Amino acid sequence: MTNNQNPINNNKGYYVGVDFGGTKILSGVFTNSLECIGTAKKKTKAHKGTEAVIERIARCILEALDECRLTIDDIKAIGIGAPGSINATTGEVIFSPNLEWKNVPLKRALERILNVPVFVDNDCNVSTLGVFDAELGAEPESMIGIFIGTGIGGGIIINRKLYSGLTNTAGEIGHMVIDIDGPKCGCGNYGCFEALASRKAIFTKIYSAIKDGQKTILTELLDGKLENMRSGDLKSAIKRGDEFVLKVVEQAARYTGIAVANLINILNPEVVALGGGVIEALENEMMPVILDVAGKHAFPGSMVKTKIISCRLGDSAGIIGAAVLAKSSLNP
Amino acid sequence: MTNNQNPINNNKGYYVGVDFGGTKILSGVFTNSLECIGTAKKKTKAHKGTEAVIERIARCILEALDECRLTIDDIKAIGIGAPGSINATTGEVIFSPNLEWKNVPLKRALERILNVPVFVDNDCNVSTLGVFDAELGAEPESMIGIFIGTGIGGGIIINRKLYSGLTNTAGEIGHMVIDIDGPKCGCGNYGCFEALASRKAIFTKIYSAIKDGQKTILTELLDGKLENMRSGDLKSAIKRGDEFVLKVVEQAARYTGIAVANLINILNPEVVALGGGVIEALENEMMPVILDVAGKHAFPGSMVKTKIISCRLGDSAGIIGAAVLAKSSLNP
Repeated sequence: MTNNQNPINNNKGYYVGVDFGGTKILSGVFTNSLECIGTAKKKTKAHKGTEAVIERIARCILEALDECRLTIDDIKAIGIGAPGSINATTGEVIFSPNLEWKNVPLKRALERILNVPVFVDNDCNVSTLGVFDAELGAEPESMIGIFIGTGIGGGIIINRKLYSGLTNTAGEIGHMVIDIDGPKCGCGNYGCFEALASRKAIFTKIYSAIKDGQKTILTELLDGKLENMRSGDLKSAIKRGDEFVLKVVEQAARYTGIAVANLINILNPEVVALGGGVIEALENEMMPVILDVAGKHAFPGSMVKTKIISCRLGDSAGIIGAAVLAKSSLNP
Repeated sequence: MTNNQNPINNNKGYYVGVDFGGTKILSGVFTNSLECIGTAKKKTKAHKGTEAVIERIARCILEALDECRLTIDDIKAIGIGAPGSINATTGEVIFSPNLEWKNVPLKRALERILNVPVFVDNDCNVSTLGVFDAELGAEPESMIGIFIGTGIGGGIIINRKLYSGLTNTAGEIGHMVIDIDGPKCGCGNYGCFEALASRKAIFTKIYSAIKDGQKTILTELLDGKLENMRSGDLKSAIKRGDEFVLKVVEQAARYTGIAVANLINILNPEVVALGGGVIEALENEMMPVILDVAGKHAFPGSMVKTKIISCRLGDSAGIIGAAVLAKSSLNP
């Protein structure tokens, strides 16, 4: 099949969306109407250094294009969601602890390799765009995206547009303190939302309880190799009746409910959308608790019309959002 | 002096701004360029009932007009900041615990009496508008107003406009939980910002410590009548070397610093402006602590360009903001 025979090729061009994380790179090719027609995946291998990683991103993009028999010349723009603090104007990664990157001109480097306009923003901002646009039809006037994975990040939509704040760091909801006497967070403070409800926080609690003699099905499930634990294993343990794991997960959900209520009290948004690996794996266990606790903590009248939902897009929110970023940056 | 001789009367008309609180009503007459040319003040006397209070507001407006030899016919519009949850579209006070009001059509009632367009919004939203417009020249792209008095409320400016959220309750920052195991709040939850740093929270802590035998200069200052305590008395006690009062005030400032950091992490605003009776009375004691703690708790990079200031407008932020509301609602 040549490009000319490709039925979707009547469109005026394609976009690529890249979800660039600390461990893996996902890329997707999208039609002008933001339908995904091909994807590719690569390990990040951050330890190989900046240049090698940027080349891997470029290769991951070309592989996705190959997948749908397109070439880089068919692409109007590339969007990238990257972890850490990003200068969305210059497309620089200012600081990314996960990647150990500082002041990397990602946009410029990729544009030089691929000769196509590249737009970069923070991964949670980009995923929020993805949920807003592809899942909610760009309809809510205001929305908060909350993504719970290894860490916790967020994105804010106001007046149907991504709100990035003065220096593009808006949405750092993981570092909202909700328990001043809580556990230490990676950021150096105590009781941040991320230190209480992220995958890392949940796992730390489980490891420490096991060390203190707590019995759990997880030990058997993982054949003693607890360091291999993933969010899905918690789900399996709960399914098999592990009350301890259920209690830890419900506690994380309660903290999440309070964080959701705080955000509703501050921003009174139309939609709060929860996503990320932890929510995906433990939706049934966590969402009812989150809804209940948020309802009890929201200020009277501030939540009556707010919808709290879990994202349906899963992993693909990142690449779809990045494609939305590419398209909207090119045609503002 | 007749109206025609009034030098400011060349303007095309005047606005009235009203700061309507649970204990007092303040009104101010403003020129088209929002210069205040006359004010009046009245007790609210909420116990006299809705109708009586609305009449008192009307009378307070007429007295301010009288003060500058104008009549109601010179007024283009009236703006009112009212406590509680407000439907800014209909001008109804939906619910105000301070006034014990529910679903009071304040706009309609006042328009019937005065025959001038009336616009109503939440008092903290209106004060935020006042600080934004009159103190900061409507320049910041984004701003958060934090008002610490008997309770704690806030207002949010985004894209140089008041952001009110889906049901006009945005900015209820007093009910952001920052210490999940903290003291009970009036809203029924625990550890809200308001339950930790409002005047009520500070006074409660002092009363309870005195009951437990704590010695303080306040007892002498207030001639034993501790129920008459005001924020200014804390200032006097600290000036006279009362370490206990200083400690309580500094603790409230630390909580405020964390709340400020949370808001900066979420919204990454250009300006955070602190006001209200507690900040006004204890600015020198609280602001350095707030700045220090906020700096330590803000996410790296999110506060580098944010200005944290204390408002200069004081009590008049409310009437100025209400005049801004009137003018901008009439000429959107």
